Amino acid sequence: MTTPSENPVDLDRQGPEAEIAARAEAFRNWGRWGQDDVLGTLNHITPAHRVAAAALVREGRVISLAQSFDTNGPQKGWRRRTNPVHTMTDTGTDAERGNQGFPHGIGGADDVISMPLQCSTQWDGLGHIFDHGNAWNGRRAGDVVTSEGDLVTGIEHAASVIVSRGVLLDVGRHLAGGELADGYAITVADLEATAAAQDVTVGTGDIVLVRTGQLTRARREGWGDYAGGAAPGLSLTTAGWLHRTDIAAIATDTWGFEVRPNEFDVPAFQPLHQVVIPNLGLTIGEMWDLDELGAACAASGRYDFLLSAAPLPITGAVGSPLNPVAIL
Amino acid sequence: MTTPSENPVDLDRQGPEAEIAARAEAFRNWGRWGQDDVLGTLNHITPAHRVAAAALVREGRVISLAQSFDTNGPQKGWRRRTNPVHTMTDTGTDAERGNQGFPHGIGGADDVISMPLQCSTQWDGLGHIFDHGNAWNGRRAGDVVTSEGDLVTGIEHAASVIVSRGVLLDVGRHLAGGELADGYAITVADLEATAAAQDVTVGTGDIVLVRTGQLTRARREGWGDYAGGAAPGLSLTTAGWLHRTDIAAIATDTWGFEVRPNEFDVPAFQPLHQVVIPNLGLTIGEMWDLDELGAACAASGRYDFLLSAAPLPITGAVGSPLNPVAIL
Amino acid sequence: MTTPSENPVDLDRQGPEAEIAARAEAFRNWGRWGQDDVLGTLNHITPAHRVAAAALVREGRVISLAQSFDTNGPQKGWRRRTNPVHTMTDTGTDAERGNQGFPHGIGGADDVISMPLQCSTQWDGLGHIFDHGNAWNGRRAGDVVTSEGDLVTGIEHAASVIVSRGVLLDVGRHLAGGELADGYAITVADLEATAAAQDVTVGTGDIVLVRTGQLTRARREGWGDYAGGAAPGLSLTTAGWLHRTDIAAIATDTWGFEVRPNEFDVPAFQPLHQVVIPNLGLTIGEMWDLDELGAACAASGRYDFLLSAAPLPITGAVGSPLNPVAIL
Amino acid sequence: MTTPSENPVDLDRQGPEAEIAARAEAFRNWGRWGQDDVLGTLNHITPAHRVAAAALVREGRVISLAQSFDTNGPQKGWRRRTNPVHTMTDTGTDAERGNQGFPHGIGGADDVISMPLQCSTQWDGLGHIFDHGNAWNGRRAGDVVTSEGDLVTGIEHAASVIVSRGVLLDVGRHLAGGELADGYAITVADLEATAAAQDVTVGTGDIVLVRTGQLTRARREGWGDYAGGAAPGLSLTTAGWLHRTDIAAIATDTWGFEVRPNEFDVPAFQPLHQVVIPNLGLTIGEMWDLDELGAACAASGRYDFLLSAAPLPITGAVGSPLNPVAIL
Repeated sequence: MTTPSENPVDLDRQGPEAEIAARAEAFRNWGRWGQDDVLGTLNHITPAHRVAAAALVREGRVISLAQSFDTNGPQKGWRRRTNPVHTMTDTGTDAERGNQGFPHGIGGADDVISMPLQCSTQWDGLGHIFDHGNAWNGRRAGDVVTSEGDLVTGIEHAASVIVSRGVLLDVGRHLAGGELADGYAITVADLEATAAAQDVTVGTGDIVLVRTGQLTRARREGWGDYAGGAAPGLSLTTAGWLHRTDIAAIATDTWGFEVRPNEFDVPAFQPLHQVVIPNLGLTIGEMWDLDELGAACAASGRYDFLLSAAPLPITGAVGSPLNPVAIL
Repeated sequence: MTTPSENPVDLDRQGPEAEIAARAEAFRNWGRWGQDDVLGTLNHITPAHRVAAAALVREGRVISLAQSFDTNGPQKGWRRRTNPVHTMTDTGTDAERGNQGFPHGIGGADDVISMPLQCSTQWDGLGHIFDHGNAWNGRRAGDVVTSEGDLVTGIEHAASVIVSRGVLLDVGRHLAGGELADGYAITVADLEATAAAQDVTVGTGDIVLVRTGQLTRARREGWGDYAGGAAPGLSLTTAGWLHRTDIAAIATDTWGFEVRPNEFDVPAFQPLHQVVIPNLGLTIGEMWDLDELGAACAASGRYDFLLSAAPLPITGAVGSPLNPVAIL
Repeated sequence: MTTPSENPVDLDRQGPEAEIAARAEAFRNWGRWGQDDVLGTLNHITPAHRVAAAALVREGRVISLAQSFDTNGPQKGWRRRTNPVHTMTDTGTDAERGNQGFPHGIGGADDVISMPLQCSTQWDGLGHIFDHGNAWNGRRAGDVVTSEGDLVTGIEHAASVIVSRGVLLDVGRHLAGGELADGYAITVADLEATAAAQDVTVGTGDIVLVRTGQLTRARREGWGDYAGGAAPGLSLTTAGWLHRTDIAAIATDTWGFEVRPNEFDVPAFQPLHQVVIPNLGLTIGEMWDLDELGAACAASGRYDFLLSAAPLPITGAVGSPLNPVAIL
Repeated sequence: MTTPSENPVDLDRQGPEAEIAARAEAFRNWGRWGQDDVLGTLNHITPAHRVAAAALVREGRVISLAQSFDTNGPQKGWRRRTNPVHTMTDTGTDAERGNQGFPHGIGGADDVISMPLQCSTQWDGLGHIFDHGNAWNGRRAGDVVTSEGDLVTGIEHAASVIVSRGVLLDVGRHLAGGELADGYAITVADLEATAAAQDVTVGTGDIVLVRTGQLTRARREGWGDYAGGAAPGLSLTTAGWLHRTDIAAIATDTWGFEVRPNEFDVPAFQPLHQVVIPNLGLTIGEMWDLDELGAACAASGRYDFLLSAAPLPITGAVGSPLNPVAIL
């Protein structure tokens, strides 16, 4: 087996099956953490790595990396992905008018939300994507995620795990002065050049945040097709880098993490997901807001920080909305 | 004005209105952080305090303080508070069978949740409770929380704020060998004795976690009336302590933070909430899982840690589900 | 008091307040059916009228007047009105694979829906619209509809009521060969001319269905701004006709029943609703599908039929999705 | 093949597989209405039968056969079946206070619902139950109902169909003076004796409503285990009667239509469903409220009427909430 190329020009744009299969085979981590593993590359995070990451907290500044959760989001209904619907079951207006029936002047407001777990800032769990009917660690997809949810690798397993060193790779700022064009495929060379320019290294157990700048553009120009349309993102050819760096997880400021349209001239859909989630066991973050963090890192010249990004432990979920925070 | 007593036996059990009003007046923080404030006591958290808290990370261990989010929770429908309903919009079974229409062997699973924001581990935001039609900082309740949500103090304002030093006061362990009885009213003396026994201090900007042990009992014996029934919790007489310690926030392992039944012989409902949320501007956490943390602190003898507990930024929400993590 | 004009050219396009108030005062039915009334003009339906309507059933043909309930609807999120989200909690795929744990070869599929009650074919209940804080029969709005729902006139009260003679007025077909233009204001003269051309009378207790043809156009051209944009519909000047005919209810094939933009040159919003729901007590149907019925009536030359249109008895709802059926 | 017995004492209580299989084979209607059929026994309803049914309307009285849709229902969360959650997105309190931003004094209330389609009065569609992975008409279950819903036999296909002659068999009143005991298995003999006592016949295309009286008891004593616990209901041995009468559909006032516990001494679950939905193609109604209808029929001595019971056309649903009405 030859090592799959890391240059997008080498991709056979007529042959997604083979290009995906080569990388799946080359970088598959099945069994690496035992047959019962439910964490995949999150296993790379060690207690010692967290202690070191905590030492990066020097300013005491917290930056939320979450987009808003509300009806003004980018979702348009693809595969029933809507924006969140938040409704009140009690209000201040009712409390003020004395409509609530509570004693001694107390009033209350309560609320309810209905939302896809993939509607806004999120982690894709290990049960989110399958490769030819196979889920993470070689399990059959139908043994893992049924109508009752992810019975094996639900996101709740990561509830006490995802705190580590975060590293921002502001590729948009480094390569394009702020924003990569839609359709731009980020290469291994781009990632490495950005890290070098920022004077930061990426290593075992890190959580890498790749800022493309697309969200900046969407905020300025309107959502347009942010949810599923053309976007900058990682090239399929970065699969090897994602594997050999032994990072714990990765997140971007786009809907889908990888470049869109995908790098094929025949029908294709999220081939890098197909390689890295079920085969590498990589947890992927999408729709993160990296703008304030990008500005802060550019100002300080420091691109690493403590990242606290534990998911909401929704039992059996294949993803989770969250508010990741960078603690600088 | 005399200072309200901190001894529960001094409470006039026929007069909740006066007991509440005395404490609301004595401890009101309106205007303390300006007329436009939306954070209340979260303002006590300083960058320096966060840097000091990060230095508490010595083991690199992360403990989730969240209960599960699923249909097996304690909610029974009071005021339409149900347990979360999590459903799948795509499954592994469909992917394995090839039902999804995607190319090159990729398959996916997606999901949706519908839940009250107060159904499981949560922060109560500043718009959650009103005192005689007044919300935090003296605003009229109907100007703050309408059917469209909290237009002023929505939980999204705290998205980049709630990371600080956490201090566990394991009152259940200290006073009762593990679990306080339902109906036990935790006093200022109890809080101070626990802190002394644990050799930990509570200070400005800290987030205090009070473990009663009720959740331990509910896990062993079944939920019963965990959601709204009798429970150990803070006495109304702790309002002054909550004020003078200048803590940023407080959370417990119970449904309602304060003791239930409430400390009156006439109809009463959550009087301490009425004092501390709209008047002090105190953010309250409920239904936190403090059991693993309690065991860890007892084992190590250390009761403080870095606490990362940023809410999900649901625009206009009066509360937020979250996964708080203690980083030891 | 002069009788408000039924000619749109007489409307003061700068003065919606006065034009609305004149009609509200002239046509107000408060107290007509007693102080406790919760049905409004639905009281016009008598048992005898239903018996006569049943005699109209000659073909035994049932025509559903409902649009679909699914994610492909016209809603775009205005005031959190989304399209329905239907998800499965059990599937045939799981059943076939044997994932469900049931004995002796039985399998099942179950499902869940989340939707605004105004998302598709609906009745607007009497608690849906207020006039200067007043609800139907002169009640204060805040005494009727709180965060807990419509405590007085909830749609459940009509559960055993709305079966009557239906009369189709196919104004689109009569005036415009099929489809009225967006913005066309249907007048009393139009309604009467259509009835005359169709050789049908409208009388006490009837449910009138006005077909504009806008839905036909939306089906051909795409939804566009069907939900809230320009549309043909009833002129404000039809309020008197709606009152004096003593009809029980009315429905159209548009989002909002009345013409849009509304007939004023200053900001205005649904003035006819403001007159007829809280003042006349008229139940209004929106987003009905009248196309097949229109074709059937045109073919047979008969424009009346038995209409069975009972709402779903959602306790406290201010509206209800339904499947109205014309039985010819 | 011998004809399966219609006497429950003949059932082999150790062998549900064989008892089910015998009836499935004996009464299977696959192909009876063509390979593309999506209606099953609803095909028995003819236009002429509807015209005859309309002639039964003599009093002009409408009786809703729906239970309420609200949080006070019987559901306890089994397989995520909860009671409906109805929330307001706008209220009268807000309108009265002038919080809504609308012009000229108009105010509005809107609402949202989230509910299982099987939570209250419902039709079970043909995609609701499978027999050894087979759906109605012999299709494979995974070809019919995926995570996207019922792609073939969705309830929307019945939107213009379910209006027919309804026949009440008030077995509870006839056999037991009002209420059958939980666990009572209604036999063919019981059905026929009730019909005879009521002087009513059951024939082709009728919709049969079987009142057991369990709902009456639940109203008096509380829900208890109404949702899934012991209940009176049809015996598995009635499958032949359901087949040979050529009825269009059947409904009861219980959670599950058939007797519970099921008639076996080994684990069993809804064997009659397994026979009649996928094999006969029978549409089943559950949780109907037959009490007022029962009283009316007893008073008049007439047990047949026009029944209008079209489902809500939720695209791809395997069931539908509805408000069936008997028009007497």
